[in-house]
Amino acid sequence: MAHPMNCYLISIGDEILNGQTLDTNTYFLAQSCRAQGYQVRGIYSIPDQLEAIVDMLNQIKPTADVIVTTGGLGPTKDDITKKSIAAFLGVEMFFHQATEDRIKGLFAPRKIPFTEEHRQQCFFPDHVELLENNLGTAPGMWWELEDQKVLISLPGVPYEMKHLWTDRVMPRLQARWHSSLRNFTLMTAGTGETVLSSLLHEWEEKLPASCSIAYLPDLGRVRLRLTCRDAELPEARFEQLKAEMEHLVKDYVFGYEGVTLPEALGQLLLKQGKSLGLAESCTGGYLSHLITGIPGSSAYYNGGIVSYSNAFKEALLGVSSDTLNTFGAVSRETVLEMVQGILKQPGVDVGIAISGIAGPDGGTPEKPVGTIWIAYGDKKSQHAVKILFTKSRLLNIEYAAYYSLNLLRKFLLGL
Amino acid sequence: MAHPMNCYLISIGDEILNGQTLDTNTYFLAQSCRAQGYQVRGIYSIPDQLEAIVDMLNQIKPTADVIVTTGGLGPTKDDITKKSIAAFLGVEMFFHQATEDRIKGLFAPRKIPFTEEHRQQCFFPDHVELLENNLGTAPGMWWELEDQKVLISLPGVPYEMKHLWTDRVMPRLQARWHSSLRNFTLMTAGTGETVLSSLLHEWEEKLPASCSIAYLPDLGRVRLRLTCRDAELPEARFEQLKAEMEHLVKDYVFGYEGVTLPEALGQLLLKQGKSLGLAESCTGGYLSHLITGIPGSSAYYNGGIVSYSNAFKEALLGVSSDTLNTFGAVSRETVLEMVQGILKQPGVDVGIAISGIAGPDGGTPEKPVGTIWIAYGDKKSQHAVKILFTKSRLLNIEYAAYYSLNLLRKFLLGL
Repeated sequence: MAHPMNCYLISIGDEILNGQTLDTNTYFLAQSCRAQGYQVRGIYSIPDQLEAIVDMLNQIKPTADVIVTTGGLGPTKDDITKKSIAAFLGVEMFFHQATEDRIKGLFAPRKIPFTEEHRQQCFFPDHVELLENNLGTAPGMWWELEDQKVLISLPGVPYEMKHLWTDRVMPRLQARWHSSLRNFTLMTAGTGETVLSSLLHEWEEKLPASCSIAYLPDLGRVRLRLTCRDAELPEARFEQLKAEMEHLVKDYVFGYEGVTLPEALGQLLLKQGKSLGLAESCTGGYLSHLITGIPGSSAYYNGGIVSYSNAFKEALLGVSSDTLNTFGAVSRETVLEMVQGILKQPGVDVGIAISGIAGPDGGTPEKPVGTIWIAYGDKKSQHAVKILFTKSRLLNIEYAAYYSLNLLRKFLLGL
Repeated sequence: MAHPMNCYLISIGDEILNGQTLDTNTYFLAQSCRAQGYQVRGIYSIPDQLEAIVDMLNQIKPTADVIVTTGGLGPTKDDITKKSIAAFLGVEMFFHQATEDRIKGLFAPRKIPFTEEHRQQCFFPDHVELLENNLGTAPGMWWELEDQKVLISLPGVPYEMKHLWTDRVMPRLQARWHSSLRNFTLMTAGTGETVLSSLLHEWEEKLPASCSIAYLPDLGRVRLRLTCRDAELPEARFEQLKAEMEHLVKDYVFGYEGVTLPEALGQLLLKQGKSLGLAESCTGGYLSHLITGIPGSSAYYNGGIVSYSNAFKEALLGVSSDTLNTFGAVSRETVLEMVQGILKQPGVDVGIAISGIAGPDGGTPEKPVGTIWIAYGDKKSQHAVKILFTKSRLLNIEYAAYYSLNLLRKFLLGL
């Protein structure tokens, strides 16, 4: 289509309006639309009320190509999205036996009773195309409106919504709305926006008018996105720009769009045939969680020890009580003995150890909250670095974990 | 005033619509409004466009008592909120010398040059009452509309917005709108929305017209909120309703508003003077992360072992190779030996062990993806249960972790 696709996002639910729930669904959808070159014209959170939903749909329909609603599809009686859409479309609800069979099939092995509330989930407004939900009981819904307009209704449970959007909705939208937009994203770690932009500044100035760079910082990494909107721009030129951008920041690139640091490190460990062990104190298992969140991580991860108490550090990692008494649990000496301890465990080739003061309490003038020691290496050599992070406990845990992943990645690459 | 105050929240900014910024401002405002008993009727994110802003203001004005906009007050040229409000009100902009003097006074000590962009910040739509901003250059704005309606415009910088809302706006609103709203929230775990609503259904039908129940499901737990809006309802009656609701679902209640399951378990461990150890396989450290995410958890958590490989299960938890060979890593026998292994570690009084098939691969007909064994107990007695969860790896990890927390909580309480 000629004009950019105009999209409206509607999140339905009193829990959003009364501040009980932070609406991250529309945030995810807005990011996804932008990556496709779709234009999000409005994001509206409205109550679980038939009139409010119907009014909103009528009001945005004239200027919308695509309307996406999330929420209000659960079995409890305050969920009213389907009735509202039926009223908006002027159609009846019908009972869908296949959905009842599917839900019963899901519940049987888990001995969950099929109730009247669940039966309500099997009614749908007419003319719907159901989008199969592999992660929950409520299917997504798709309606064709006049002028190729589309109305889509997705459940509010974030992981179900994301699954339906990515696997069911997006392929259909892409088939209908082609975009002249080209994106290229580099995943970087080990430095911030400011350093990256200073490296790219001169080159950025000379970009074609239709191209731009976006810096998208996230915890412990920055996504660098090159976007070119001109369909006329030759592919060869776009490829050249990609190569130039990557070269300028090559020291910090760990992958391309979508790749996470744990994935990048996992691929590297697989490639080098090395196996990882972890010794965590202040990160308390979060680093291990990042690693094991990746399917197939058992191929390169043996396991870890969360040595939260000094007794665990001594008994399981062999940290000497002298070291703990002399230098403290948060010290170069302790964190090195921790990594050496995990490297002694069966099958462990490379290791990471982390010990620090996550906060909010436990800081001292010499070791303020946010002081974190990280050790990494293999049986031959181990290294330790000290970092001072923020005042927020969870941020310190997350920063330290991502920071340590990048340290080991560079160690494995000899950088 | 008789009716509850109707409020609309408008966040202005392209960065929200294109997914570069998660709008947490309206979330904060919605929470604050709810605490006051104000009714948020809509939360709308709209672009930095004069027409879009004027249209939205005109559209909601008839049903609004209070309209709050955030964003679009900065010095950069895409910030157009003030011009749009002037157009909506049909008034001119005027230059406010005191604001220029104030900004120059702020900049002088920091040697920041006063630019033309900053000068733009000194123009305001007529009839405005300026709300002094102690944390930034852009003051908040307040306009009286007909019928006691109010239009409020705040900067988008979260800490400036919060300061102006809390210290400048809220006192004025409270003086004008008194609330009669009462809330009571129960935190439940161990069952879903459907079972809870079936337990409460009959009682819910008999609630006073001014009272209602909301089911707010989250991973592994459901928040149950009772809301009563009638100021005439006697406090004793409200207390009775609270007690009735809690009694009907008592088997699933682990706390009140805001308490998380890891916090509830932590409080229980502190109270009983018991210390926790964890042995995780498929959850890969996530359970340990949940526990250590709580400040002060070192008082009742010694540590854990992430035994991802069988070698780790044998070496660190003492699981026998016979057991692993005969019954497999995902079995009652293995998970019981895992929990017994962690209970042998220094200072550990109670333990949880988890072993399962998180997926997406590794399933078999007898042990499909989502099959998870959880063992828990103390040195005297250990118990094991098998659960069948979903097809999603991360969900299985998260469900299993929360499920196991609730199992240990009930064990400690002898439930």
